[in-house]
Amino acid sequence: MPKQVDHEARRTQIAEALLRLASRGGLEAVSLRDVAAEAGISMGAVQHYFKSKEQMLLHAMDHVTKRAGERIVAALSQQGERPSARKIVRTVMLEMLALTDDSRMEFLTHLAFFMRALGSPELAAMYREWWPELERWLTGELRTAQESGELPPGLDPAREAEILLSIPDGLSVGLLLGHRTGEEAIATIDYHLDRLFGGHRS
Amino acid sequence: MPKQVDHEARRTQIAEALLRLASRGGLEAVSLRDVAAEAGISMGAVQHYFKSKEQMLLHAMDHVTKRAGERIVAALSQQGERPSARKIVRTVMLEMLALTDDSRMEFLTHLAFFMRALGSPELAAMYREWWPELERWLTGELRTAQESGELPPGLDPAREAEILLSIPDGLSVGLLLGHRTGEEAIATIDYHLDRLFGGHRS
Repeated sequence: MPKQVDHEARRTQIAEALLRLASRGGLEAVSLRDVAAEAGISMGAVQHYFKSKEQMLLHAMDHVTKRAGERIVAALSQQGERPSARKIVRTVMLEMLALTDDSRMEFLTHLAFFMRALGSPELAAMYREWWPELERWLTGELRTAQESGELPPGLDPAREAEILLSIPDGLSVGLLLGHRTGEEAIATIDYHLDRLFGGHRS
Repeated sequence: MPKQVDHEARRTQIAEALLRLASRGGLEAVSLRDVAAEAGISMGAVQHYFKSKEQMLLHAMDHVTKRAGERIVAALSQQGERPSARKIVRTVMLEMLALTDDSRMEFLTHLAFFMRALGSPELAAMYREWWPELERWLTGELRTAQESGELPPGLDPAREAEILLSIPDGLSVGLLLGHRTGEEAIATIDYHLDRLFGGHRS
């Protein structure tokens, strides 16, 4: 089905143009025309794939989330064996840190979407599904780790998940502005994980 | 010196107009003209006080930071006696949470400034002074608490300060988009403080 592949490739091309614009200067001032120019295609082609700016943004967020998910799966599968909960949590947190060009761009994109979601019920609704889903997934991983004895029994998996997911965003601000190095940010994450998992570096 | 008081009041008036604009739609598209209109004064008056947009932004950030500092001091002094380290840390963290209209606006203002600081060496330099200073202050408070026995000796005050200051930002995103309640966010902060201070609710 070459036609379908084309459609998907074209949507991705448009989404990535939007992401580059979002990470450079936010989303408020971005028009369909800007996206078309950045993607190197016509306005008509953009309008063919996306009926509104909101639809385009939703697709782009979906794209960015999938891309990050794929990097996490790839990093974990390099290990060969079933990774420990600590390794899974650490991989997700490092992926959220603005350490590489890709993750810096994604962090800024999330910020730009967040700012826009404050005024867009459609985007806010997407966040309200997406973020709690990530928290629930992490909560489940921590609960399993408790059952297997990797995580101490006294901890509250849901609260720990909220805290774990807050830390990379806070550290990324310092990374992006240059008052914190990547090494320091990773050391702080490892410090917190040492505390949670009782110092096991599995 | 009534003249000097006037100057200060006028600067504050301009800064607050800028803050309202920043919290509504970011800072990229805000012009001196917009600020003048929002403050209800002339362009010339704005230009008399601030030679550039960057200067205006620096003053506004300074204003917002002082205002939050004053609220923290006021909240702590209501207690009468010397507050515990736990109480000090908790007050700062709750102040950073986007719980009230004021702190919501300040959170969004910080975000808008942060986005702009990425492209402005002058604003980035301000952040590089200001944020590490807050971290150092909190690190000092935690070290003092260790010396007095309020905080367990095994903890690293600098790493703990980084983590403590990351949590409110992460939780505020959910507060602003509506997938987390203020009560839940406060419960998560108290959960983390219970862990740190060993469950003492002083």
